[in-house]
Amino acid sequence: MSDEFVLDFRREERIGLEEAVFAEAKSAAQIDAILDAVAARDGAILLTRLDEAKLAALKPEHRTAIDYCAVSCTAVFGPMRPVAGSGRVAVICAGTSDVPVAREALRTLRYQGEEAELIADVGVAGLWRLTSRIEEIRRFPVLVVAAGMDAALPSVVAGLVAGAVIAVPTSVGYGVAAGGHAALHAILASCAPGIATVNIDNGYGAACAALRLLRAAERMREATP
Amino acid sequence: MSDEFVLDFRREERIGLEEAVFAEAKSAAQIDAILDAVAARDGAILLTRLDEAKLAALKPEHRTAIDYCAVSCTAVFGPMRPVAGSGRVAVICAGTSDVPVAREALRTLRYQGEEAELIADVGVAGLWRLTSRIEEIRRFPVLVVAAGMDAALPSVVAGLVAGAVIAVPTSVGYGVAAGGHAALHAILASCAPGIATVNIDNGYGAACAALRLLRAAERMREATP
Amino acid sequence: MSDEFVLDFRREERIGLEEAVFAEAKSAAQIDAILDAVAARDGAILLTRLDEAKLAALKPEHRTAIDYCAVSCTAVFGPMRPVAGSGRVAVICAGTSDVPVAREALRTLRYQGEEAELIADVGVAGLWRLTSRIEEIRRFPVLVVAAGMDAALPSVVAGLVAGAVIAVPTSVGYGVAAGGHAALHAILASCAPGIATVNIDNGYGAACAALRLLRAAERMREATP
Amino acid sequence: MSDEFVLDFRREERIGLEEAVFAEAKSAAQIDAILDAVAARDGAILLTRLDEAKLAALKPEHRTAIDYCAVSCTAVFGPMRPVAGSGRVAVICAGTSDVPVAREALRTLRYQGEEAELIADVGVAGLWRLTSRIEEIRRFPVLVVAAGMDAALPSVVAGLVAGAVIAVPTSVGYGVAAGGHAALHAILASCAPGIATVNIDNGYGAACAALRLLRAAERMREATP
Amino acid sequence: MSDEFVLDFRREERIGLEEAVFAEAKSAAQIDAILDAVAARDGAILLTRLDEAKLAALKPEHRTAIDYCAVSCTAVFGPMRPVAGSGRVAVICAGTSDVPVAREALRTLRYQGEEAELIADVGVAGLWRLTSRIEEIRRFPVLVVAAGMDAALPSVVAGLVAGAVIAVPTSVGYGVAAGGHAALHAILASCAPGIATVNIDNGYGAACAALRLLRAAERMREATP
Amino acid sequence: MSDEFVLDFRREERIGLEEAVFAEAKSAAQIDAILDAVAARDGAILLTRLDEAKLAALKPEHRTAIDYCAVSCTAVFGPMRPVAGSGRVAVICAGTSDVPVAREALRTLRYQGEEAELIADVGVAGLWRLTSRIEEIRRFPVLVVAAGMDAALPSVVAGLVAGAVIAVPTSVGYGVAAGGHAALHAILASCAPGIATVNIDNGYGAACAALRLLRAAERMREATP
Amino acid sequence: MSDEFVLDFRREERIGLEEAVFAEAKSAAQIDAILDAVAARDGAILLTRLDEAKLAALKPEHRTAIDYCAVSCTAVFGPMRPVAGSGRVAVICAGTSDVPVAREALRTLRYQGEEAELIADVGVAGLWRLTSRIEEIRRFPVLVVAAGMDAALPSVVAGLVAGAVIAVPTSVGYGVAAGGHAALHAILASCAPGIATVNIDNGYGAACAALRLLRAAERMREATP
Amino acid sequence: MSDEFVLDFRREERIGLEEAVFAEAKSAAQIDAILDAVAARDGAILLTRLDEAKLAALKPEHRTAIDYCAVSCTAVFGPMRPVAGSGRVAVICAGTSDVPVAREALRTLRYQGEEAELIADVGVAGLWRLTSRIEEIRRFPVLVVAAGMDAALPSVVAGLVAGAVIAVPTSVGYGVAAGGHAALHAILASCAPGIATVNIDNGYGAACAALRLLRAAERMREATP
Repeated sequence: MSDEFVLDFRREERIGLEEAVFAEAKSAAQIDAILDAVAARDGAILLTRLDEAKLAALKPEHRTAIDYCAVSCTAVFGPMRPVAGSGRVAVICAGTSDVPVAREALRTLRYQGEEAELIADVGVAGLWRLTSRIEEIRRFPVLVVAAGMDAALPSVVAGLVAGAVIAVPTSVGYGVAAGGHAALHAILASCAPGIATVNIDNGYGAACAALRLLRAAERMREATP
Repeated sequence: MSDEFVLDFRREERIGLEEAVFAEAKSAAQIDAILDAVAARDGAILLTRLDEAKLAALKPEHRTAIDYCAVSCTAVFGPMRPVAGSGRVAVICAGTSDVPVAREALRTLRYQGEEAELIADVGVAGLWRLTSRIEEIRRFPVLVVAAGMDAALPSVVAGLVAGAVIAVPTSVGYGVAAGGHAALHAILASCAPGIATVNIDNGYGAACAALRLLRAAERMREATP
Repeated sequence: MSDEFVLDFRREERIGLEEAVFAEAKSAAQIDAILDAVAARDGAILLTRLDEAKLAALKPEHRTAIDYCAVSCTAVFGPMRPVAGSGRVAVICAGTSDVPVAREALRTLRYQGEEAELIADVGVAGLWRLTSRIEEIRRFPVLVVAAGMDAALPSVVAGLVAGAVIAVPTSVGYGVAAGGHAALHAILASCAPGIATVNIDNGYGAACAALRLLRAAERMREATP
Repeated sequence: MSDEFVLDFRREERIGLEEAVFAEAKSAAQIDAILDAVAARDGAILLTRLDEAKLAALKPEHRTAIDYCAVSCTAVFGPMRPVAGSGRVAVICAGTSDVPVAREALRTLRYQGEEAELIADVGVAGLWRLTSRIEEIRRFPVLVVAAGMDAALPSVVAGLVAGAVIAVPTSVGYGVAAGGHAALHAILASCAPGIATVNIDNGYGAACAALRLLRAAERMREATP
Repeated sequence: MSDEFVLDFRREERIGLEEAVFAEAKSAAQIDAILDAVAARDGAILLTRLDEAKLAALKPEHRTAIDYCAVSCTAVFGPMRPVAGSGRVAVICAGTSDVPVAREALRTLRYQGEEAELIADVGVAGLWRLTSRIEEIRRFPVLVVAAGMDAALPSVVAGLVAGAVIAVPTSVGYGVAAGGHAALHAILASCAPGIATVNIDNGYGAACAALRLLRAAERMREATP
Repeated sequence: MSDEFVLDFRREERIGLEEAVFAEAKSAAQIDAILDAVAARDGAILLTRLDEAKLAALKPEHRTAIDYCAVSCTAVFGPMRPVAGSGRVAVICAGTSDVPVAREALRTLRYQGEEAELIADVGVAGLWRLTSRIEEIRRFPVLVVAAGMDAALPSVVAGLVAGAVIAVPTSVGYGVAAGGHAALHAILASCAPGIATVNIDNGYGAACAALRLLRAAERMREATP
Repeated sequence: MSDEFVLDFRREERIGLEEAVFAEAKSAAQIDAILDAVAARDGAILLTRLDEAKLAALKPEHRTAIDYCAVSCTAVFGPMRPVAGSGRVAVICAGTSDVPVAREALRTLRYQGEEAELIADVGVAGLWRLTSRIEEIRRFPVLVVAAGMDAALPSVVAGLVAGAVIAVPTSVGYGVAAGGHAALHAILASCAPGIATVNIDNGYGAACAALRLLRAAERMREATP
Repeated sequence: MSDEFVLDFRREERIGLEEAVFAEAKSAAQIDAILDAVAARDGAILLTRLDEAKLAALKPEHRTAIDYCAVSCTAVFGPMRPVAGSGRVAVICAGTSDVPVAREALRTLRYQGEEAELIADVGVAGLWRLTSRIEEIRRFPVLVVAAGMDAALPSVVAGLVAGAVIAVPTSVGYGVAAGGHAALHAILASCAPGIATVNIDNGYGAACAALRLLRAAERMREATP
C-alpha cells in the first residue's frame, strides 16, 4: 500500500496550503495507510468527502483521533491549529440546502487557522434577506458565496459590494439544475464583474482560494512600508 | 411552390393567435409565394427572423407593403391592427444587448393589438436600476423579462412582484453563455417560484404566451358576473 | 441550526405565493427546525420532494401534523386553506407515468386555494383520447400540461385551444429521454405558439405560474370598470 | 488523386443501393476525379450536399452532364433510370422549411427508380392540415416524415396510420432546436410505437431505408406462393 | 386510480400494433389497475421494463397470469397469439451483453405473432464470427441489429446485405459509451446507407418498426396482382 | 435609443470597479449613444470585444477619442488614469495564441490604474520555460494565468507558488478543445488547491477579480494597525 | 445460453491479443457458460470489471479457479503465463485514487506475459514527486499514464520524456470532473505532442495498446538485420 | 512581439520530436516573428493548420522558403530532412473526405524523416475494399487510421491485424457526426482491444504518437543484445 501514495509534506512551505486527503475515491485501507504516515510524523491532516460508512471502516485509533463533521463530511485528524485570523472571510449561502458546502469551506478555513463567519439562506427569491444584512456583508474583505439552482446570489452580491467574491456553485437542484452545471454556468456568465469561481460543491477549493488571497494580502502588506 | 405550404388562416379563430412566418429557414421564393397567398385574401401577416438580405430579395411589391424593423428583424406585411389593449404588459430587459429580442416581443404584441412598454437595461449588476423602477414594474400584471448571460434578472423580479412572469433567455454572451443555454438553464432552475419560460431568443413566443394569458384573463372576466 | 434558514413569511404579501420547502436537499433536522418555526407562528407550509424515508425521520409531532401524498411526495404541514377558486385550471398529462408530477401541481394549487381538475393519459399516440375530451379542455382558461418522452402533447394541445398553456416536461423515459431533457427541448422548440414552460418535473413551479396568472387576471378584472 | 478513392461499383448488386457521393467534404478536384471514373464506365451517380459554388468549380463537361436541384443540393450525373415503382412512398414534411430535406429524399428515391409523393406543411400546430389528408396518407405503405423543431409530426402520424414510418429530423429551428438535436431526440423518444429514424437532415438516408424496405417487401412477395 | 389511464384498445385496428405497458415509470398499483381493465375484457397485453421487484408487488392473480422473462424484463399477461409468420426477421446482436435488448425484441415480435431468430455475439472485433454466418443472415429480409459500445456492427452488416436494417443501440459500455449515446451516434452517422434506428435499448421499438414493415410488405403484396 | 441603456456611473463607488461596455452584442448606434452619454459627463469608459469593423462604424469624434488595441479588441474612450500600482500582478499565458486574452486582462488592469506584467508562452509542453522563470513568478502576489487546450499550466503554477491564482481558460484549440470547454473543465477540476477561474476568454473578468483582490488587500492593510 | 456467445479462440493468433471477458454487462449465468467453454479447452481467460457480488454468484468450481484482484476487479481464470518481458512498461498514476485503473493495466499486461512497474501518486500538484523520479521514468520505452480530474500529468510527462505515452483518463473527481470527461478532454487537447489515449477508466485497453506496441517493436527488430 | 513566444529548440533532444507551430490561432505577425527566430538559427520548422489566406499574409521571404500543401494546410519552412525510415507506417483512411487529415499525418511523419504510405477510401460500407488490401496492411507494424462519421474502420482493422493502431477521428459528417465527436466516441468505445486515439482531426498528433512508438522500438532494439 505504501507504494500507492507520496505525501507532500512540504506543500505548505511551498504554496501556503497543506495537502488534504480527498477521501471519496480512496479505500479505507488507503486512508489508513496515509493516516499512519501522518501519525508517524505527529502531523495533522484534513480529509474531505469522507462519508460516515468509510469513517466507520477506518482503524479505531484513527477514528478516535478524528474530529468529524457529518454535515460537510470533513474530518480533521490530529491537532487543530490555533486561530490566526478572523473577521476577514464570510461564507454566504443562498439556501439552507447549500449549508454542507458552506461548512466544508468554513472547516477548511478553520483548519488552516482562519475563523470565518456563516451567513445562510439569503438567496434572491426574498431579496430583503440579503439587503437587510448587506452592511454586515460589506465589512468582510473576502466573500465565499455558495449557491445552487440558478445561482443568482453571487451576481447580486458582486453588484453590491467591493469585496473579493469567490463563488461555489452547488449541486442543489433537479432537472436542468441537476449536478450543479446550471449554477456553475450562471456564475461564469455573470453580468457582475470580477467573480471568480471553483468547481461544483468545492467548498474546500473556495476556502483554499480565500487563503491564497489572504496570504497575498499579507505579502503585499509586508512589502509596503 | 404552392404545394410547399398550407396557410392556417383560421388559427386565430381557433387559438386566438394568427399564424406568423418564421422566415429564417425559408427561401425568398417560398416567402414570396406565401405573401402572394396572403395578399390574395387582403390579409396581413407577421414575419419573424427576416434578415435584410432576404428582405431585399423579395418581390418589390412585397417589400413596399412591409413595415420592417431592422433591430428585431420582424416585418409586418399588410395593415396593422388598431390598438386594443395597453398598460397590461411590460417587456423588461436586462441589458442593452437584449433589446432586439425585447423588440421582437413588443412588435408581436403590437401586431396583435396590444401596446406594451419597454423597460431596458435594468440588470442586477447595478441593482438600483431595477429597484428604482420596481413600483412602475409592479403596476403591470404581465411581465416579459428578457435576459442573457447569467439571466439573474427574472429570478430577482419574480421575487419582488406578483405579476405573471414570462422569461426569455437570450443568446447574449460568450464562453459558457454562448448560445443562451446558461441563461435558459438559470431561468428554469430559478429559486423564485412561478417563472415560465420560452425558447432562447424567442421574443415572438413570449409575446404569444402573454397574449394567451390576456385572452384567458378576458375569458375569466366574462365568466364572472 | 436556526442560523441555517431565514423564513420569508411575507412572500405571499409580496408576490402572491407563499414560501414552500424544497425538502429533497435538506436534512430531516433542518426540516424539523423549519417546521418548529412555522408552528411557532401557527402557520402552515407546503413541502415538496419529501420522500417517505425523510418523512419518517421527522419529529413525531411534525409527522402527525402533516397531510402527505406519497404519489407526488408533497406534504402540507398545518391547516389547508379553504377553496377559493375552481374550474379555471386543468392539469393534463400525457401518460399514466406523468401522474406524480401532475399531482404535485394539483396539490400546490389546492394548497393555495385553487381546486383544479386532472385529465390524465391523453397522449398523442392515441389521438382520439385527446380529441374526445377537447371540448372539455377548451373550457379551462388555464392548462398545465405534463408530458415526458417526446412531449408532443403540449404542441398538439396548444394548436387546438386558446387557453394559456404552461407545460411541464417530465423525466419519464429512457435512452435519449432519460432525465427529461428531450421533453424539455421539444416543448421549448414547439411549432405551436405561446407555450411557456418550467423545469423538468417541476409540477410545483407550473402551479405557481398558473397562480401568478390567475392573480394577474384578477388584477386586470379589478382594473376594468 | 486516383489513389484517394475506390468506387464501389458493385454495391447495388450487393445491397440493392448504388453508391452515392457525399460532396460536402470533398474538394471539386476529388469530385471531378470521381466523375471521370464514373464517366469512363458510362455510369451514373448521385451526388448529395453539393452546393452551387462547388458545382460551379467542376469541369464544364461534368457540369453539363448534371441534373441539379438547388433546393436539395442534389445532383444526378449521367442518365436517370426509368420509373420502376410508384404510389408506395409518401414524403411528408411538417413545415415549408423542411422541404429541402424532403426533396433530397424524393430525388434519391427517383434516382433509384421510385416515384414518391410530397405532402408538405402538415405540422401539428394546425392539426386539421394533417387530419384533412390522413386518408390519403393511409394509402401509402411507406412514409418518410421530415420534421424539425419539436418534431411532433412523426409521433402523431405513427399514432394514426399503420404504414412503416421512417422519420428524418431536420435542423430547422433555433435556440434549443438549433442543429436538429431536439427534433432527433423527440423522434427517438416518441410515445408512438415503431418509428425508425435516420441522422439529422439525412433525406438521402431515409430514402435508402425506404428502398431497403421496398426491396425486402419484394423479396417476401417472391418467397410467397 | 381509474382516472389515471385510458387504454387504447383499438390501437391495433388503427396502426397494426397493440398498446403495450411501459412498466418502468408506473407504480405496481397503476399496473394492477391496468391489468384489471385488460382482464375485464379477456384481453392480453405486453409489459416492458418490468423488473422482478415490481412483478413481485403485483396482485397474485396477475402474477400467475403472467409469462415473465427475467433477461429482458418483459411480461405477457393473458394468452399468447399463435405464430403467424416466421423466417422473416433475424435479431442479431454484437455481444453477449446485448442479449437482453435482443430478447425484448424477440419477445415483442413473438407476442404479435412473428417468430424471429436470434443470432448473437457476432461483433466485428472478430469479423469471422459475422462473415461465417453472412449467408444465413442474407436470407432474412428484415434485420434487427442490436449493438452497444462503438456499434460498428450495423454499419458492417448494412454494407454486406440488402435486407432492411433496423438498428438498436444498447447502453452496454462505460466511459464515453455509458448510456449508449456513442452507439446511437455511430449508428446515425453510419457510412453504410439505409440504416434506420430507434432509441437506446429500445428492443420493443425495433420490433414494432419491423412489424410495421412486415405489415407494409403484406399490403404491397395484396395490392399487386 | 436613450431608453435602451442606463449607465451605472456610481458602480466604482459601490464595488470598486467602473462599468465597462461589452461591445460584441451591441450595435454601433447603441455604442455611439453610450459614448455620447459618457462624453457628456467628461468621463471615460472601457470597451471590450469591439472588433475593427464596429470601431470603423462609430462616429468619427468617438473613433478619434479611442485608444484601440487590435490584438485584444479593447478600446479606451477618454483619458487613461495614472498608474496607481505595479509589480503586484503578473499575467502569464501558456502559448502565443493566448496572448489576445492576456492583453485584454493587461489593458483592463491598466485602465483601472494597475500596471501588470506579461509572461508569455511558458506552457508545460516545455517545462523549462516555466521553471526558468519561476522565481520571477513567485515575486508576484497575484497571478492571472491564461491557457487553452488542456490548460495544464494553472495546475502546475498553483502547485509551485503561493500567490493567488486566477485562471482564464481560452478558446484556443480544436476538436474536443474547441470553444475552450476542455480548458475550463481542466481548470475547475485541478488537483492543485485554490485556483479560482472565470469564463472562457474572459480576460476582462480575470482582471476585475484581480482588482477586487487588490482592493481587499488594501482594506485589510488599512484595518491593521 | 450457449447460443449467446461465440468465443474468439484464435484472436491472439490474429491480432496478438487474447479475448477477454467484459464482465460488467454480463450475468453470472452467462459468465459461467463462457468459463465452462474455456475450461473445456483447458484454456485461460482474463475477466475485467467483475465485482465481488458477481464473483460470489459464479459456480464454486469457477470461483476456486480464479485469481481475483479486488482493487482492480480483474480475475484470471486458469493458469497464468510465464513472464516473457519486463522493464519495458511503466504504469504511472497521478493520484492514489487512480490505483485501481493502474492495477487493471498491470494485471492485463502480466496476464499476457509482460511484467510492468507501478509508479504511483506523482501528480503535478507536487511537481517534485514527478521530477524526483523522472530519470527512472525515462528508462521505460513505454509509459501508461493514468490520471483523473484535470489530467495534467500526461502532458507534463510527455513534455519531459521521449517514450511512447498511452494515457488513461480516470473517472476520479466530482462536479465537472465527474465521470472522467474533463480528464479525457484535457488529454486529447494536450499541448504536448504524441500522446495517445483510450477510453475513461480503460486500464485494460491501455495495456492492450502497450502490448500491440511491444509486438510492433519486436516485429521491427526481427525485420532489421 | 518577441516577448510573446519562447521557442523550445531542444525539444527534439528531450522528447524526440521537434516543436511545431499551430498556426490556426496565431496572427501572421506572430508567425513571421517565429519564422524570423527559426531562420536566425538556420533551422526548420513545421507549421500546421495554416490556411491559404494566412500564408499569403506572411512576409515574402518566408512564403518563398515554405513548402506548402493546400490539402492538409501544412507548411515546411526550411530544409526537409532526409528520409531515415520507411515501410513501417501506413496511414489508412476510411473515405476520400478524410484525406486532408491523413495527409497532415503523412507530412508530419515525412518532416521528421519517416516515409509512410497512404491507403485511402477503404471504409467498411464496402468491406471488400478493406479485405482486398488486408495482407498489405498487415505488413506495416504501425497503422494510423483516420475515419469520420461512425468511424467503424479502426474497430474492424484492429480486429484483423496485430499492428499498433493509432486512430484519428475526423470531423467529416453532419447532424450527430458534426465536429467529429461521434467518431471520437466510437473509437474510444471500440470493442476491438488496444486502439489508442488522438484528438479529432489531429493528424499531426497521430504522426507524433507513431514517431514516439518508432523511437521506443529503436530503443528496445538497442537494449537487446
